[in-house]
Amino acid sequence: MEKFELHILGCGSALPTTRHFPTSQILNVRDKLFMIDCGEGAQLQFRKSRLKFSRLNHIFISHLHGDHCFGLLGLISTLNLLGRTAELHIHSPQGLEELLKPMLDFFNHQMTYPVVFHAFETKEPTLVYEDRSLTVTTIPLRHRMPTCGFLFAEKPRPNHIIREMIDFYQIPVYELNRIKNGADYVTPDGKTIPNSRLTRPSDPPRSYAYCSDTLPLASVVEQVRGVDLLFHEATFVEEDAARAKETYHTTASQAASIAREAGVKRLLVGHFSARYDNEELLLEQARAVFPETLLAKETLCVPI
Amino acid sequence: MEKFELHILGCGSALPTTRHFPTSQILNVRDKLFMIDCGEGAQLQFRKSRLKFSRLNHIFISHLHGDHCFGLLGLISTLNLLGRTAELHIHSPQGLEELLKPMLDFFNHQMTYPVVFHAFETKEPTLVYEDRSLTVTTIPLRHRMPTCGFLFAEKPRPNHIIREMIDFYQIPVYELNRIKNGADYVTPDGKTIPNSRLTRPSDPPRSYAYCSDTLPLASVVEQVRGVDLLFHEATFVEEDAARAKETYHTTASQAASIAREAGVKRLLVGHFSARYDNEELLLEQARAVFPETLLAKETLCVPI
Repeated sequence: MEKFELHILGCGSALPTTRHFPTSQILNVRDKLFMIDCGEGAQLQFRKSRLKFSRLNHIFISHLHGDHCFGLLGLISTLNLLGRTAELHIHSPQGLEELLKPMLDFFNHQMTYPVVFHAFETKEPTLVYEDRSLTVTTIPLRHRMPTCGFLFAEKPRPNHIIREMIDFYQIPVYELNRIKNGADYVTPDGKTIPNSRLTRPSDPPRSYAYCSDTLPLASVVEQVRGVDLLFHEATFVEEDAARAKETYHTTASQAASIAREAGVKRLLVGHFSARYDNEELLLEQARAVFPETLLAKETLCVPI
Repeated sequence: MEKFELHILGCGSALPTTRHFPTSQILNVRDKLFMIDCGEGAQLQFRKSRLKFSRLNHIFISHLHGDHCFGLLGLISTLNLLGRTAELHIHSPQGLEELLKPMLDFFNHQMTYPVVFHAFETKEPTLVYEDRSLTVTTIPLRHRMPTCGFLFAEKPRPNHIIREMIDFYQIPVYELNRIKNGADYVTPDGKTIPNSRLTRPSDPPRSYAYCSDTLPLASVVEQVRGVDLLFHEATFVEEDAARAKETYHTTASQAASIAREAGVKRLLVGHFSARYDNEELLLEQARAVFPETLLAKETLCVPI
């Protein structure tokens, strides 16, 4: 099966701790790398992950809080030192380009590659990226400023042709695309060979949803229904639910409720408050609601 | 002896590696903390050092390259989240305030404390900080942009009074300051008690010099003469001397020559190029010239 795996570069929240970096993740889809959020130190963690900088072409920023984007300056500068020439696309809510541009201009006299900023609206789900095999759609969230999560969805793939059957029936090459897409084959003497004899189904398309930072939202449940992996922020334990609400964050059990209602396959929680010495209580509270819950952790890699 | 110790938060150079953070150090002088340079991740390393954020009031930035100052945004924002009220002073070459101000204003809507920027000239040694026990003076360096190192020097302290002798001669309290400063004491019946019987010398003043990034300079030798600890960048091994010159950096053996000529007590080398898998060769080359050389390393603490 082709690669579709998530690397956690950082899963802490705004205050630094001795255990966590601020938020950043890399989704590896068939060796194309997509970065989600870019907190301070993201490039250092990226390097540690042994993934290749050159495979990164798109960065998605959920919102303009420092713990989700202060790593951009360093990462962009490093790619410049490395002599990158390919465009780097940064997708974010409005405002990032204006903020970063003066610093990028000063700190990188001669850019070896273009940084292309794309601002997305944050009210409605919006397609922000598409290629042959993948779409990325925003997931509107509710935080203290315009914020979106991201839904990464593989496109359904055509069935696989069974080479031996093609040979057996001496099917001409120009028929193959139709057959891949589900058509039956009619032999020269008028016999119909059903598609199911000629192909086997491809792997079902996989999906990953990222939701941080946000209050728990019913609209998220709808949008992430059935995904293979849901990352949802779980900044606080249930006992700090009032604080979660006040700061527009989610508790571990609220995140788990969303996972359960949306019928996702697995839940990964992160964006942990600095107030906890470890995250065992968060995990316990989430698993009480949704057993298939994992804790995010720096250097964790989750195959999807 | 009162604290005078150096903590290495990062000692890599511009490109991230799996082993090093970019440049940042904390000098702890009697529990006042002074930060020198602030590369990306400095606040994370600061937290790991278990030193107290609240003890930091002055940051000295050598020059405006990203690997020496990209950590400022995160650190300043974190101190704001922590509700700091004391002024934070940032000393740097001209230009930093203009660059950081728009980002600080955006990312910290309500600052709980003032950040005060001080721009220093980079051509002549300049006193940039002074308190009762310490001075900080710039050390002009030669790099690809205006750059200074910093000389931290304790002020000489008055002698210590020997309490028993004061009691023995029944010396009145109002005489004590004069005696501390070296005066003899004349008894009511005209007998002179030499100062050396009444006091013992205080510890000699200590000093630390920081020089990064720079070509090797004769003027540095003059300015750091006899310091207890010299940090000097040693980005390259001797075999890469041409590259060092071209990029305005120093080799390990050049750094060691400066230490030897300046007669410093110990040399600490850092700012290692990402091209080396370890720094043993740098250490070897430096020690061949100046045996009292140490390699910088993250989390290293050097008492001075």
